[in-house]
Amino acid sequence: MDNLGVLFLSELVGTAMLVLLGCGVVANVALVKTKGYNGGFLMVTIGWGFAVFAGVIVAYASGAHINPAVTLGLVANGATEFGNAALGTTVPVDALTVLTYIGAQLIGAILGAIVCWLAYKQHFDDEPQPANKLGVFSTGPAIRSYAWNLVTEIIGTFVLVFVVIGFGRNGDASGLAALGALPVALLVIGIGASLGGPTGYAINPARDLGPRIAHAILPIKGKGSSDWSYSWVPVVGPIIGGVLAGWTAIVALPLLG
Amino acid sequence: MDNLGVLFLSELVGTAMLVLLGCGVVANVALVKTKGYNGGFLMVTIGWGFAVFAGVIVAYASGAHINPAVTLGLVANGATEFGNAALGTTVPVDALTVLTYIGAQLIGAILGAIVCWLAYKQHFDDEPQPANKLGVFSTGPAIRSYAWNLVTEIIGTFVLVFVVIGFGRNGDASGLAALGALPVALLVIGIGASLGGPTGYAINPARDLGPRIAHAILPIKGKGSSDWSYSWVPVVGPIIGGVLAGWTAIVALPLLG
Amino acid sequence: MDNLGVLFLSELVGTAMLVLLGCGVVANVALVKTKGYNGGFLMVTIGWGFAVFAGVIVAYASGAHINPAVTLGLVANGATEFGNAALGTTVPVDALTVLTYIGAQLIGAILGAIVCWLAYKQHFDDEPQPANKLGVFSTGPAIRSYAWNLVTEIIGTFVLVFVVIGFGRNGDASGLAALGALPVALLVIGIGASLGGPTGYAINPARDLGPRIAHAILPIKGKGSSDWSYSWVPVVGPIIGGVLAGWTAIVALPLLG
Amino acid sequence: MDNLGVLFLSELVGTAMLVLLGCGVVANVALVKTKGYNGGFLMVTIGWGFAVFAGVIVAYASGAHINPAVTLGLVANGATEFGNAALGTTVPVDALTVLTYIGAQLIGAILGAIVCWLAYKQHFDDEPQPANKLGVFSTGPAIRSYAWNLVTEIIGTFVLVFVVIGFGRNGDASGLAALGALPVALLVIGIGASLGGPTGYAINPARDLGPRIAHAILPIKGKGSSDWSYSWVPVVGPIIGGVLAGWTAIVALPLLG
Repeated sequence: MDNLGVLFLSELVGTAMLVLLGCGVVANVALVKTKGYNGGFLMVTIGWGFAVFAGVIVAYASGAHINPAVTLGLVANGATEFGNAALGTTVPVDALTVLTYIGAQLIGAILGAIVCWLAYKQHFDDEPQPANKLGVFSTGPAIRSYAWNLVTEIIGTFVLVFVVIGFGRNGDASGLAALGALPVALLVIGIGASLGGPTGYAINPARDLGPRIAHAILPIKGKGSSDWSYSWVPVVGPIIGGVLAGWTAIVALPLLG
Repeated sequence: MDNLGVLFLSELVGTAMLVLLGCGVVANVALVKTKGYNGGFLMVTIGWGFAVFAGVIVAYASGAHINPAVTLGLVANGATEFGNAALGTTVPVDALTVLTYIGAQLIGAILGAIVCWLAYKQHFDDEPQPANKLGVFSTGPAIRSYAWNLVTEIIGTFVLVFVVIGFGRNGDASGLAALGALPVALLVIGIGASLGGPTGYAINPARDLGPRIAHAILPIKGKGSSDWSYSWVPVVGPIIGGVLAGWTAIVALPLLG
Repeated sequence: MDNLGVLFLSELVGTAMLVLLGCGVVANVALVKTKGYNGGFLMVTIGWGFAVFAGVIVAYASGAHINPAVTLGLVANGATEFGNAALGTTVPVDALTVLTYIGAQLIGAILGAIVCWLAYKQHFDDEPQPANKLGVFSTGPAIRSYAWNLVTEIIGTFVLVFVVIGFGRNGDASGLAALGALPVALLVIGIGASLGGPTGYAINPARDLGPRIAHAILPIKGKGSSDWSYSWVPVVGPIIGGVLAGWTAIVALPLLG
Repeated sequence: MDNLGVLFLSELVGTAMLVLLGCGVVANVALVKTKGYNGGFLMVTIGWGFAVFAGVIVAYASGAHINPAVTLGLVANGATEFGNAALGTTVPVDALTVLTYIGAQLIGAILGAIVCWLAYKQHFDDEPQPANKLGVFSTGPAIRSYAWNLVTEIIGTFVLVFVVIGFGRNGDASGLAALGALPVALLVIGIGASLGGPTGYAINPARDLGPRIAHAILPIKGKGSSDWSYSWVPVVGPIIGGVLAGWTAIVALPLLG
């Protein structure tokens, strides 16, 4: 398999892992009769954080973007190579590479959401509220307002991508893969706890759109609407936030090391 | 003592530590009059996670499988040696080695569960619900369905073993023992939070079967059934999940580094 | 840009990040209709801890004080240079340097609070209690008593600055930037959980005064008083605590390594 | 100051820090009107864990026992030197050294408890239940039975000291001071969550006896009994557990590396 194929699979598997565990913790908290039912928002943020942790570990070969906002943010930041230099899996950044990453992330997210549905199949069947079922797959706003919801997603994703670039520049994330995964996981816990209140912090277009597609196509019992009218917010917001962060990090280069 | 004897003791002590602390946190949350009564599912996942942490530290000499699904997953992945190369405790992988590991894990789990019962003896005596007592020892499904419960355990254990193999291949888990224990602990917290909802995440045949045997033989006041009809699910599911993960990781080798 | 300019921006951006995420978690827990509403004090402490984590990462170039009490505590401790030696951004410590750091921290805190308000705009609008709105920005005492509230803030900040100096002297915080950020984050979680009960642990004059200024100037719907009568306590207390810690750490040098 | 003087101060300051933060989190959860009132047992375990973290950092020069059960467990394990070799603060282990460590720990614990009382002074004054006040200082059993309470404390302390010896032997705790503090902190969170249910996990004679002495001598408003009849259990239990762990670790040497 050539490098681009490796990177495609790496992003696909990593994003599937991310979404399986991330949607899983929402299922555990939101669906009836689970062991973790009503377990609180802190548990949701910790579950999503360690979902990132696992996803980053398995997407080692591709540099573990597992998020189109990270991919596009790094492009905006001027990255010339994607992949893992230590493994010799790097490829030049061009339109094909970017499409390969984003396509893999989206497909991986769909697959991860399907596996999550299988793991919680009976609880989906017994859950009476359609909104709770969709909530396992995709985010929705606490107070619907496309403009303000977009602002919140932009801010959250800006923080994610800007600090992730900081990890890389501070120099210790490289080389120590499992520990390199830890700072990102803790950051995502922090963003969730701090900025997740208004929109449920998609901060990742694939994480939101992929499961929404899965929700639309899966034969989920009594599933209700996939809320497509909101679906563009957690796609557009994170892309804007990620690209802004990539640009800002260029200016802020002397700060980040 | 020859190496196989060291490995036997190492797995036994490590699994006993795992089960003592892991069953302990369930006792603290589930049994009446404890300080942590009704402390929530997040506390259960954190307690089990740090139980893994302690178990991995004390099972340093054997590579800290402390789980037959990990042992069998590594066999499926093609491991030729078990043990700790830095300590010179390695042995070739053959049927005797595998049986030694699994036997030690099962015996250790029984012993750990017994010590947990002693630590919470008065709370077991005062607890009115037999189901809560069994719940300290072994997992049970939120909604009973052998097929779906099996699916959930397969998925959870697949994630565990696949990512654990990733830790090893990413290269930083080796050498830093206490930190090597940390990523696994965080992963188990994540799996519990995310995939523990339907079955209580055994993801380890010894962790479930050993304490169930302890439950059956101990003179626990008013203990009720050991639910043997369900007992095969958290044994067979994790074995399938672990072996599938070991096989998959061979194919995924270029991704994991 | 000269070094002092880099340090100014570094502290400004780092403190803005700190306050954005820190005030954010309070907004998520305190304001109506958020996803994390009523999420508990533990979530608040974890949110603030990882806010410190993110702030320290982005303020890498300036040594990541992001807190006037740390700046003044290091002065009291006898620091002769501020900045990051690995990046060549160090400057001598004199009155201008100290003012530059503190000015940047205060401005950054104001900006961070403004962005937090934007992220939670709709929830501020819908929140009926003015006290909850102010609580997102600045701390307030559980039982008002300037003397005792001051004591609590002095103790909390003493612990922060004294242990932070210990991190530096123990020698491992330098060099590993993302991991150097982790110990401080965990320490702040611990201080919040342990000493945050009476006053909400400002332990940072900029973190409290900056958002209070933002509260006073922003057009927040139905915002009520900014409680200026209390505002000096979370400024003076942390300064006293930080300076005392700096002095004590000189005496305690043989202990801290 | 000679080395023994340094070690004395180091243990004193470290144990004071441990007890200040540890008792602090109980105060935050148990006393009326605090910000963290009724914050749950998980917050207590996290607070005590990071209290250990801070205590270990500041007791760097003495090897950070900050617990007579650790000191005696290391003696039982055959330690010949206490202190920190990297700092040149080591002294031979003899009766005077052991007494110096334990004396410093006890005095430090008394001082830490006094500072905690000052930090929460108004909440102690307003708290109507004497039992809640004592609970901030010292542990008490959920179900009183000297024999079984002793068993629980022995088991909990055995786990602590056995795994701590494992950290040292696995080899990574040395040298990385702040990270060496992290594994112990996580272990103590785990022990608290898992084995803290019946007795509140003293697992440290100084942590329990020192604050109880402080409770007895401080002019706490409406403080009630110091429960001296139970006070020997959290002293004798941890000593037995620690010494047993030290002995067992000798036998288990080939396992721990």
